[in-house]
Amino acid sequence: MNSAAADKEPLDIPPVPSWWNRRHLLDTESLSVEEITAILDTADQFKQVTDQGRQTLSVLSNQIVANVFFEDSTRTRTSFGLAARRLGAQVVEFSASSSSLSKGETLIDTAKTIEAMQVDLMVVRHRTPGTPQLLAQNVDCALINAGDGPHEHPTQGGSQEGLTIALVGDINHSRTARSNIWALKKLGAHVIVCGPSTLVSPLWESLGVEVSYDFDEVVPRCDVLNLLRIQFERQYTRPFPSVREYALLYAMNKERMKRAKDDILIMAPGPINRGVEITPDVADGPHSVILDQVTNGIAVRMAVLWLIAHPGADPQGGD
Amino acid sequence: MNSAAADKEPLDIPPVPSWWNRRHLLDTESLSVEEITAILDTADQFKQVTDQGRQTLSVLSNQIVANVFFEDSTRTRTSFGLAARRLGAQVVEFSASSSSLSKGETLIDTAKTIEAMQVDLMVVRHRTPGTPQLLAQNVDCALINAGDGPHEHPTQGGSQEGLTIALVGDINHSRTARSNIWALKKLGAHVIVCGPSTLVSPLWESLGVEVSYDFDEVVPRCDVLNLLRIQFERQYTRPFPSVREYALLYAMNKERMKRAKDDILIMAPGPINRGVEITPDVADGPHSVILDQVTNGIAVRMAVLWLIAHPGADPQGGD
Amino acid sequence: MNSAAADKEPLDIPPVPSWWNRRHLLDTESLSVEEITAILDTADQFKQVTDQGRQTLSVLSNQIVANVFFEDSTRTRTSFGLAARRLGAQVVEFSASSSSLSKGETLIDTAKTIEAMQVDLMVVRHRTPGTPQLLAQNVDCALINAGDGPHEHPTQGGSQEGLTIALVGDINHSRTARSNIWALKKLGAHVIVCGPSTLVSPLWESLGVEVSYDFDEVVPRCDVLNLLRIQFERQYTRPFPSVREYALLYAMNKERMKRAKDDILIMAPGPINRGVEITPDVADGPHSVILDQVTNGIAVRMAVLWLIAHPGADPQGGD
Repeated sequence: MNSAAADKEPLDIPPVPSWWNRRHLLDTESLSVEEITAILDTADQFKQVTDQGRQTLSVLSNQIVANVFFEDSTRTRTSFGLAARRLGAQVVEFSASSSSLSKGETLIDTAKTIEAMQVDLMVVRHRTPGTPQLLAQNVDCALINAGDGPHEHPTQGGSQEGLTIALVGDINHSRTARSNIWALKKLGAHVIVCGPSTLVSPLWESLGVEVSYDFDEVVPRCDVLNLLRIQFERQYTRPFPSVREYALLYAMNKERMKRAKDDILIMAPGPINRGVEITPDVADGPHSVILDQVTNGIAVRMAVLWLIAHPGADPQGGD
Repeated sequence: MNSAAADKEPLDIPPVPSWWNRRHLLDTESLSVEEITAILDTADQFKQVTDQGRQTLSVLSNQIVANVFFEDSTRTRTSFGLAARRLGAQVVEFSASSSSLSKGETLIDTAKTIEAMQVDLMVVRHRTPGTPQLLAQNVDCALINAGDGPHEHPTQGGSQEGLTIALVGDINHSRTARSNIWALKKLGAHVIVCGPSTLVSPLWESLGVEVSYDFDEVVPRCDVLNLLRIQFERQYTRPFPSVREYALLYAMNKERMKRAKDDILIMAPGPINRGVEITPDVADGPHSVILDQVTNGIAVRMAVLWLIAHPGADPQGGD
Repeated sequence: MNSAAADKEPLDIPPVPSWWNRRHLLDTESLSVEEITAILDTADQFKQVTDQGRQTLSVLSNQIVANVFFEDSTRTRTSFGLAARRLGAQVVEFSASSSSLSKGETLIDTAKTIEAMQVDLMVVRHRTPGTPQLLAQNVDCALINAGDGPHEHPTQGGSQEGLTIALVGDINHSRTARSNIWALKKLGAHVIVCGPSTLVSPLWESLGVEVSYDFDEVVPRCDVLNLLRIQFERQYTRPFPSVREYALLYAMNKERMKRAKDDILIMAPGPINRGVEITPDVADGPHSVILDQVTNGIAVRMAVLWLIAHPGADPQGGD
């Protein structure tokens, strides 16, 4: 945890703000506007550094980052792994299937054992909401939530301010939606959640967002559309009559693009289902930033790893 | 993609030929004699460099190589991984089981997402012939075919010129055979394919090779024998009455060794089935170069990675 | 295998004893007291070096360590992987499920193929006792036994001398017990094995240890208790009426702690089953060194890798 490591690097490594005292990133709900801004600014600076030649930094060398994925996700796991290695850290992979949980070990004992292997930072994904919080209270190393059931997925958040942003689709099952809403509201955006009533509860209004079931009315007002995937694997009953009907009402397609603002941005957390929430011409069109999100995601994760590995003099534990 | 990186290395790093302009390696069918020779010469030089102390080079440092294996193969995956790391590259692993394909993502979207993680070079294996070609047309990064169904497996090729070479066994299901034949024919070898008629179609003659069903007649004429494994896992019907009968007619054994040339070389792509296509005394005997092939395979893959990462001023895309 | 690499490192890298000539670590049964002491002393020195800043050494750079786990074990695999990387080595992972064994390859051919990928050191785990010995006789690279069925698990051993130590629980199925006993006896400890008669055969007495079925009588005499997990997954019949009854007779709990020596150490190889062989208050209490064992295990594995990679002028093969 030597913040002195930063001294050896070239001048353009982003400095950690002196007031930064968070050792865990468990949600965006508890993040202040200043903290969100610090993460996004740091990500932006890392992106500039690594874009020119993609060199590997050594600011986290001698640190070990453990990817502890009790629920698998190649894309998030790889993104964190690349971010950590680009900062010079070593990465160790743990997965549920191969863990000792099947031998009767408790989740907390598993985490403590991983920590005892001199792990400095743990990236945790688990099906049960609150797991990262529980583990953060029981280990000494830093901890990042990489998705806890439908709860939160803080590093998957967006970054627009003063804009109208609609999250479209399976809002109820989406942790990305939840993390997005917290961050976007704090940054001053007007947030709309939109989809069929079986996937968008009216209770979302209590978080201060607009709830709409009419996508055609929403499209012309938006600066950004974030099209969430229908997570068939998380649903027990069919939330709509057919995929074709869903696409008819909620897919972003050529017709709806004509009624959208000229500079609309189309986002999607991926993997995308072409022909369901988005048509190929929109996914591959000039307004799509879907693949940029993947690239930027690495920079955001570098920023989070870097900040969290360097808490200030008065760490609060982050929870 | 900075070819300047080579300047920092010791003098004996093989230079990339100025005319090399291929960014993908999708097959050996389209390779020219000069290109095949360049790959083999480069492999030979890398072998000399790395044999003395096995040091890791840094010529591909700052580059990320993704092993994208939609069909698993420990041996090929590991060989590419070691080759890439020996050149200083970082390696990221993707596998079919853990990929987003199961969530409805298209193959091309998966490849584009991996590329968006700032991957420079993708090594692809897939059950369906033509997949690497399809992906190469849709991504910007360099791409190497590590096996596409029964089609090709270019880095698994051989290297003999002006010789008589027999490929024995399950020719119809073998992508190694196909890649071998193209490379060997171009290098001027006389190629024989030999095996039971259920595994060796007479149509192979159209590629300019000799087709034989009589192994005993073939053995005395050969400088090199390449004994292919019976791929039980790729067959739906039994192509011969019993393993014992196959071994009787086509196994390379002590008796047949007596009628072979004094300096015959015994090759096998592995994994070998002792007692089926080869007997233990031959597999472990002085003429066997089966394990040398494994070691040389790493050098060949280093050569391909190195050449492909440094295309000339006029890249043609390789297809 | 250049022992000259050590020269570049800071002064505190432990020197390899001049008499060290072992190239494999297959068991503790054949280790001399001097060898065991050398391993533990070296581990102690590595621990001091790496604890201050956790830097990665480069003494095994240019060496490739293969984790060849025919039977999975995240914890042992990760511990060896971290130990190897902390010494600067590259680590390659092989697992049974993805290996060529399923295609009919023999175990020895698999090992030879892995070695042909220029692997310098192989860490092997297999369900069948004697597998590491068999492979060591057939490959040239160094080999470490990371568990062979119920036989041995040498790097999991303990380190107390002149003390009374009880191993409690499922002795018959435990390779850790076996490796512990050999090492502890050689270091002069009085060893007790204790548990229900279905899990502790009276035949253990032939190894020179005390056999007891009365845990309450054993507790007050011990300096160290090593509480083995009931390995439900290795048993075909229930060795005791219920988990509750086992815990009543053999769990280390608050009541038994009151009758233990003041400075007793509580060990467990993990993963632990809370409420079975140990109660939470003991597992998390001040006498527990369970998590220290995890941390020390990495240092022990570093020591073994370091020593075995540098055999003296007269290597004996270690078997």
